[in-house]
Amino acid sequence: MDNRPIGVFDSGLGGLTAVAEIMKLLPGEDIVYFGDTARVPYGTRSENTIMRYVREDIDFLKSFDIKAVIMACGTASSVSLPRIRKEYDIPIIGVVEPASRAAVEATKNGRIGIIGTSATVRSRSYEREIMSLCSGAKIFTAACPLFVPLVENGRCDPDDVVLYTMVEEYLAPIKAEGVDTLIMGCTHYPIIERAIAKYMGEKTALINPGLEAAGYLKQSIGAAQNASGGSCRFFVSDDRDGFSENASKFLGKSLCGEVELKTVGK
Amino acid sequence: MDNRPIGVFDSGLGGLTAVAEIMKLLPGEDIVYFGDTARVPYGTRSENTIMRYVREDIDFLKSFDIKAVIMACGTASSVSLPRIRKEYDIPIIGVVEPASRAAVEATKNGRIGIIGTSATVRSRSYEREIMSLCSGAKIFTAACPLFVPLVENGRCDPDDVVLYTMVEEYLAPIKAEGVDTLIMGCTHYPIIERAIAKYMGEKTALINPGLEAAGYLKQSIGAAQNASGGSCRFFVSDDRDGFSENASKFLGKSLCGEVELKTVGK
Repeated sequence: MDNRPIGVFDSGLGGLTAVAEIMKLLPGEDIVYFGDTARVPYGTRSENTIMRYVREDIDFLKSFDIKAVIMACGTASSVSLPRIRKEYDIPIIGVVEPASRAAVEATKNGRIGIIGTSATVRSRSYEREIMSLCSGAKIFTAACPLFVPLVENGRCDPDDVVLYTMVEEYLAPIKAEGVDTLIMGCTHYPIIERAIAKYMGEKTALINPGLEAAGYLKQSIGAAQNASGGSCRFFVSDDRDGFSENASKFLGKSLCGEVELKTVGK
Repeated sequence: MDNRPIGVFDSGLGGLTAVAEIMKLLPGEDIVYFGDTARVPYGTRSENTIMRYVREDIDFLKSFDIKAVIMACGTASSVSLPRIRKEYDIPIIGVVEPASRAAVEATKNGRIGIIGTSATVRSRSYEREIMSLCSGAKIFTAACPLFVPLVENGRCDPDDVVLYTMVEEYLAPIKAEGVDTLIMGCTHYPIIERAIAKYMGEKTALINPGLEAAGYLKQSIGAAQNASGGSCRFFVSDDRDGFSENASKFLGKSLCGEVELKTVGK
């Protein structure tokens, strides 16, 4: 047993969809969450800037003597993971490997769709991972840069014309290719899963990256699992009040405990 | 005559609508522009974070021995200007005073609408300025947090259902109050002026903050005007390629000269 906490970070609120899944699967673990709300979003930024932000995020989490890091951010996982792993001495788990594995298991026709931020799609991270697991897969990608601002502004209702128009526009080319599995490659997207499912149809398997990363974490820590904890500390780099208000939507329940402020990039 | 350049900054691309107006009104001035694209948007962040970012932006511009700063950002002008002016020894011109003055001159019925980012509306900056000029004015405000991401994602067509639905939703309460003048209180908004005008009707005067700030600058520098320059250097904190692509839309013409990278917040 290893009672050190697990560190989780995201550019903002999206990573809380992963925290929710970790709390269900590993209820005895202590969690330290960091949301970089002073610099959100990451998905429209360049590789160099994302690398710099990710290092600062992990350095902060490491100050809590954590036993592992979950990069609960599709963009950070896509752009930085292979290089970042070489720089740190603790396990770092992203969302790309677990979600890709789940997609390969789920697909029957070998046709897989991937949606994510501009940086995620540009990185081709999910494509590389899927092809290494199943070289015959046919992969179709779409960047959905407006999904994060829409989710952060609370436009999550499948009947909202603004959200649904964007869902149709972004997903039409992927749907036309007959995919039977779609990776929601950004931890914000499970919040609009109902709108995505409405457009794609109920036969399409939707892969939730936070859920898959939580499963992967459980496997990874194995016997080092903590059964005696269950606490969660939340840190953000900006606007603690706004965070508490919105966080419950992502977490699926209200935040227990205070949200603390941590300045980064100073 | 003072041949030192004028410094202009914004969180990202919006400030280029002000640069375009300065180039028209003061074609002999040299301009140094800084767009903080590694931390855009400012309008959803807290006051402390915005103050910190603004100081770093001005410190960078001051390294060019500038004679004045234009804060071509509704959020920065609203949140930081009175305090920031006390910290620096050169003139700092925001968009709130010039746009408020223009609105008071334009209105016939004394009913003025203001739209801006969440931080701008929360600051009540335009309201204070207008009331100091015309204490009988009736003011109606609306935060429009999705306008910046919509503009930055190129959704500027008045016939676009996504943009026009948001215009209707944000502006309906203001239109219902019978305003005859509307301040587009963010330098991104002139890019969607046609959609705003379509909804508000042609009788509503729309105030463009960048245009008004350029006029104010011309008055302010008076005899110190430069007639022999006309160059423009562009700096961004992230993704130079993306900037060049989008900048021409804001500037109304293609960028002449290279875009340079300047890292901030390190």
